[in-house]
Parts: sequence; structure tokens; C-alpha cells
Amino acid sequence: MRYAVLGTGVVGQALAGKLVSLGHEVRMGSRSKDNPAALEWAQKAGPGASTGTFADAAGFGELIIEAVGGHVALAALQAAGAEHLDGKVVIDTSNKLEAMEGGGMRLAPLDDIGSVGEQLQREFPRARVVKTLNTLNFGVMTDPAAAPGAHQVFLSGDDAAAKEQVRALLGEFGWPGERVLDLGGIETARGVELMMPMWLTLYGNFGHGNFNWQVQAMD
Amino acid sequence: MRYAVLGTGVVGQALAGKLVSLGHEVRMGSRSKDNPAALEWAQKAGPGASTGTFADAAGFGELIIEAVGGHVALAALQAAGAEHLDGKVVIDTSNKLEAMEGGGMRLAPLDDIGSVGEQLQREFPRARVVKTLNTLNFGVMTDPAAAPGAHQVFLSGDDAAAKEQVRALLGEFGWPGERVLDLGGIETARGVELMMPMWLTLYGNFGHGNFNWQVQAMD
Repeated sequence: MRYAVLGTGVVGQALAGKLVSLGHEVRMGSRSKDNPAALEWAQKAGPGASTGTFADAAGFGELIIEAVGGHVALAALQAAGAEHLDGKVVIDTSNKLEAMEGGGMRLAPLDDIGSVGEQLQREFPRARVVKTLNTLNFGVMTDPAAAPGAHQVFLSGDDAAAKEQVRALLGEFGWPGERVLDLGGIETARGVELMMPMWLTLYGNFGHGNFNWQVQAMD
Repeated sequence: MRYAVLGTGVVGQALAGKLVSLGHEVRMGSRSKDNPAALEWAQKAGPGASTGTFADAAGFGELIIEAVGGHVALAALQAAGAEHLDGKVVIDTSNKLEAMEGGGMRLAPLDDIGSVGEQLQREFPRARVVKTLNTLNFGVMTDPAAAPGAHQVFLSGDDAAAKEQVRALLGEFGWPGERVLDLGGIETARGVELMMPMWLTLYGNFGHGNFNWQVQAMD
């Protein structure tokens, strides 16, 4: 299958690299077609890997993974072009983080948008937005065993078939179906995005990102 | 030991009842000294249970548990009186929830205060505020087995000795020390308070509150 991965950071590289290793064709998109990080990634990733602008990548991909920061997620999809998103599953992995004075990161206020996931779905009503993978470190996304024991990823989105497609993709990444928790519509993206301050606290305390959440619930 | 429990709702009643059953003396405080819910609770709880105003209770308690809604937590402590809080451990269990139009609850914006925990510590600098127990349902607070498997409670506060005292109290409630995760200073209350939208989503999906969080982390 053909994937677009928008973003050249650690999340984009982790997801794009895993997809290539699984035998998929992956085009990594960025603002410019000659982004050095993207070109270096493609050279290392080998056959199946290509690069281009956000629009090049989105036009290429049958499924689109948005893996940029939450502040620029909307701009990245606008650059990708609504015509390249229509009817496609668009996975939003982003968190709206901002640098604090004196160092460190924090979650930007979300009250004006609800959540990045909702914002993207509002702006691109014909895209099938699924929020997922924003509650865990990039290393755990494609290697669940990087955090011990049983733990979960979450899905938020209005399109049930899109969520099933994402669940299957997460299965390829190593997440069995019972560890993929469907939260409901895209409005539930707000809850998972607001977990980020706690995530940042834990990250600071542990000194690494090899952890994840497990919701323990009675049947 | 003598405890004040400020608040007559389900959280206050669960905590106050458990404390009495453990053999402690508990005064439940509310805005008026003849609050019907408090009087009824004390009658049922039996020896060790008493009631009074917020100030009566706070004056009585060696340790104070604030178990009112986050919107009125500050007002409750103001009514209790700073002189009754000075040097004491004040446990803040609250979440700043508000009713939505059309039903349901949501987390009120926190950006103006950071978190209720921080707000209370700022307003009462000589109180030793510890945020805990706000990330789980009242039934699980004093009966961890109400949610299956291993799961955790969190501590946030600036006073290490106060947190140790709260950890011991949580031990009396049934939480072994290794399931009580000290997050750091009171500023970490923001992260646990912002987990509430996700908690509300899960509560709506499960249809009950018998669930809780487990952070799975590599050593």
C-alpha cells in the first residue's frame, strides 16, 4: 500500500521507516521538496522510500499520516491540499506542544480549537481523520515492547471504517486489537491531547520515553 | 488521628466513611453546620463521626481532606480559615468540572489558574497541599480492587514529608506504596487535573467508574 508521511521529525521517521520495513511504499512530505532530513531518510530507508512536498506526498499516499507538530498540522494539511485528502484516511499523531521560556516543552492551550484532531476534521470535512498514537513516545509506537507489560493506544474519529483501517495498520506495527481502544468520535481527541502534560511530567521523572498507559477496567 | 473532610458529596462520604471504619475521628465540614447530607452521614457512620462548618471541621482535623468541586475548593478553604490550615497537610482531591449545556460534565478551562492544586497552594502558602485521588472514581479510592489488576494513584506536592503522610494514608485505604506514584511538586497537579477529559470519555464508554490508570514504564 502507498503511504504519505507528512513530517520529517522523529515521529515521521519512525513511522515511515517501519512502513518501508513492512514492504509498503512511503513518500515522506515536507515543506520543501529538498528537505535534507527527508532525503537522508529516503537514502537510508532504501526501496519503497521517496520524498517530496506535502502535496507530492499526499497525492501519492492512499493513506496519509500527519506527523508534524500540532501548531503546524493545519498548515501542513493545507499545503498538502484538500483535493489530496478527500475521502482518504488521515491519521493525526500530533500534539500542540510549545517551548517554554527557560527550556522544556508544554502543551499549548487547546480551548480555542478543542483539539488538533477536531480542528483538522472541521477544516477538511471530506478527510477521514483518525487521531491516534499521540499519547506515547515515537519509539513505542512501532515497538510496543519498548514499554513493559500490557498497555494501549487510542483511536478517535467519526468514521468507523477509517478507524478499522487504522486498527489494522496498528496491528502491523505490533499492537494486537485488544490493545487498541476506540474512544469514539473525533471530539474524544481532546481527552487524549490533554494527557500530554501528564506525559511530559512522567517523561521528565523517568528520564526516558519507554512508558505507556494502560486503562484497567472492570467488564 | 483526627481528620477533617470538607465536602458532603460522594467523594467526601466515601473518604470520611472509610476513615471512620479505620478507627479515626472524622469531622465532615460543609457550608452550614446543619447540612442534611452531613448529619445523615454522621448518624450512619456512628462513633468517631461528627459534623460542622468548614471552619469547625478544619479546626478539628490534624489532616484536612478537601473533597468539594474544583470550582468551590478555594471558597471552601477560605471558609475553613487560613489559621486552621497553617502547617497542616491539606489533601486536594478536586477536579474543576462544570455542567455542559444539554447534560454531561466537562473540565473547566484551567489556564488561568494552572490547576486547582496550584491555586490552593498559592492562596494558602503555609498549608502543605498534596494533590491526589482526583484521577479515579470515588468507589476505587478506598477499594482499589474495584478496578482490576494493578493500577496507580498519583501524588503532587511541594512538601516531601506531607506526601509521605498521604502515602501512609493511602496505604490504609489499600494502596501499596509501589502503586502510589510521586510526580513531583504541586505544579504537576496540572497534568493529573488535565486527565479528567479522558477520564470522562472512558466513564461514558464503559458506563461505570470501575477503572483506573496504570503507567507501564521501563526501569
